[in-house]
Amino acid sequence: MRNFVLENPTKILFGRDTIKQIGAEAQAFGTTALLVTGCHSLQASGIHNIICASLKESDISIIPHPGVKSNPILSHVRKGVALCKAHGIELIIAAGGGSVIDEAKAIAAGSVVNHDVWKFFKGKASITTPLPICTVLTLAASGSEMNGGMVITNDELNLKLGTGNKKLCPKVSILDPSATFSVPPNYTAYGAIDAIAHTLEFYFTAQDPNTPVQDRFMEGLIINLMEACNQALNEPTNYPARANLMWCATMALNGWTAAGLGLVGFPMHMIEHSMSALYDVPHGAGLSVVIPAWMRWAATKQPRKFAQFAERVFMIRKGSVAERALAGIEHLQRWFERIKSPTKLAALDIPSTAIHALTTHSLAQAKLWRLDGYHQATIEEILQLTI
Amino acid sequence: MRNFVLENPTKILFGRDTIKQIGAEAQAFGTTALLVTGCHSLQASGIHNIICASLKESDISIIPHPGVKSNPILSHVRKGVALCKAHGIELIIAAGGGSVIDEAKAIAAGSVVNHDVWKFFKGKASITTPLPICTVLTLAASGSEMNGGMVITNDELNLKLGTGNKKLCPKVSILDPSATFSVPPNYTAYGAIDAIAHTLEFYFTAQDPNTPVQDRFMEGLIINLMEACNQALNEPTNYPARANLMWCATMALNGWTAAGLGLVGFPMHMIEHSMSALYDVPHGAGLSVVIPAWMRWAATKQPRKFAQFAERVFMIRKGSVAERALAGIEHLQRWFERIKSPTKLAALDIPSTAIHALTTHSLAQAKLWRLDGYHQATIEEILQLTI
Repeated sequence: MRNFVLENPTKILFGRDTIKQIGAEAQAFGTTALLVTGCHSLQASGIHNIICASLKESDISIIPHPGVKSNPILSHVRKGVALCKAHGIELIIAAGGGSVIDEAKAIAAGSVVNHDVWKFFKGKASITTPLPICTVLTLAASGSEMNGGMVITNDELNLKLGTGNKKLCPKVSILDPSATFSVPPNYTAYGAIDAIAHTLEFYFTAQDPNTPVQDRFMEGLIINLMEACNQALNEPTNYPARANLMWCATMALNGWTAAGLGLVGFPMHMIEHSMSALYDVPHGAGLSVVIPAWMRWAATKQPRKFAQFAERVFMIRKGSVAERALAGIEHLQRWFERIKSPTKLAALDIPSTAIHALTTHSLAQAKLWRLDGYHQATIEEILQLTI
Repeated sequence: MRNFVLENPTKILFGRDTIKQIGAEAQAFGTTALLVTGCHSLQASGIHNIICASLKESDISIIPHPGVKSNPILSHVRKGVALCKAHGIELIIAAGGGSVIDEAKAIAAGSVVNHDVWKFFKGKASITTPLPICTVLTLAASGSEMNGGMVITNDELNLKLGTGNKKLCPKVSILDPSATFSVPPNYTAYGAIDAIAHTLEFYFTAQDPNTPVQDRFMEGLIINLMEACNQALNEPTNYPARANLMWCATMALNGWTAAGLGLVGFPMHMIEHSMSALYDVPHGAGLSVVIPAWMRWAATKQPRKFAQFAERVFMIRKGSVAERALAGIEHLQRWFERIKSPTKLAALDIPSTAIHALTTHSLAQAKLWRLDGYHQATIEEILQLTI
């Protein structure tokens, strides 16, 4: 196990009927809030009303900032920053999924500085004193509700970049699984796959090969994400299923699984971000295509770890190490297919001729993310496996 | 999954050579510290010197409070409280195992009030603004380094009681696994068993029977605790083994496994605390005797959960549900025996005639802990299984 520092101060309120506590929790951080939201579903579900009533009761005035896209864009972040500066906003309340929370973080960081917010993503400025953030989560997927990371797409440059700082960890996150009852089947699946991807990135790219404690934790998360996703797809209002899905997705990227792994890479996200940036595909859908391809490429490098994954997650005990490693990947891909998530580039309406452009784009990110070992030829080899 | 609030602000510094950072971390909380320690092993290992040098470098003056017992006693806590009040102590630094940290918490709570500290344990006063605590851990066992709980024995009344408050969570805990290289085999085993007991209490007493996410997390912890303990006993200076043992023990009681379980009971601890209070046996040794007995009693009430435990932890797949449930308990008991931990009352030098006194004592605690279902006859029935 490698040395690590773990500090996650986010207070989690998890469960039924917790959203109405947002006002009481948020009032510790100020009286003027920017309310960051996405599309109309928040109004339709009634959650928007519950939040507004609770904030009003706690004497918190709201400046609305709706319209966050599912791959949040820089130009919209800048509008949020301008609103904060114009209205003397003291705290950000994000109500939505990972995209809404990521944009809220970017606004929180950008509102307290005089330079453009994109500077943080280019690594040219450090996040020091962002505005406090409280969240109400409506999608089990990104884990952004309990970490300091954020990913934003620069819509001028067509570049999707991530950065983070522990100071961006939400102060309070409210997780009511029943808020996800209305998430449609495709986004339920994409969310589960996003959380599985976070777990797999850590599991297979850890700097330290000897992390048995973290391995079992992550294997358990993946098994539970698949089981809970199956149940939620069969019965969208199954509370235990939605609750397990939501809590697993949070734990997949809140620092608990990664503690002790040493450096980790995000190669699958690196390649997927190019798909989202160039073709605006849902993040989870892109990952669903990239994961089996990357795994087939990586399994040849570390077959024993992939065989362990196959044995413990899918109970595969027959065959050689290489055969078991491959069988585990095939089981996972078949599960993606069963939950109707794309596993080939064509299913995303991306032509195979796009591989060159995707490679170039991914390569630029690999350099920015300091991911050694991912050269032009490597990325192209992985992308060829998505055809 | 039940509703829950999770907030664990403790900053963990984990790994080799981290102890020398205690001064830099502690100086945020004050300049006059009470240094709470146990026996001489801290001096012998050189850790005491490292801590003192680091504190000196950060201009933190120390009032020493050594001599904490392995079941920390109220009279010694009171001496610590008096020292804090006399010297205007601003923070507590606890260097040792769970007993030292528990005593530090009691002193931190007692030093800022005018009433006796025992009032907190009787539930007659609330902990509001304890002194900040930083810890340097030297034993993988109690989990006290990352939670707000504490257990103290009232040496006048022969009563061992626990209480807690999230405000007692250490601000910073430094976990250097190499600090446990010199822990002797028996205490290495007792520590692992203590952490396993914490996990089993949650696993088998959760109010909500449907907690698949938490179940797999806990099963993973128990498997890893056993594996790491075996390795550490074979090779006491095996760093990965000591690291896994230490981190598992912390995770076993830091709130992560319990989140969503609803109410949980501590029946095994309740009975063991009587053994420690009346016969001063090491906590882990007492648990090692109580665990198989309580499990045999409880397995008749919920055989399916015990069969799941047997299947997932010990790969037992043959036999009826009841047979598998029993086989899992037998496997665990045989492992206790292999690591030379007692599994019968006689091995603790407690005569079977003591069962009546132990029952009476446990019953008093069951009432204080509001553990329904544990009546005189029940506790006696469980204790009979320890003969």
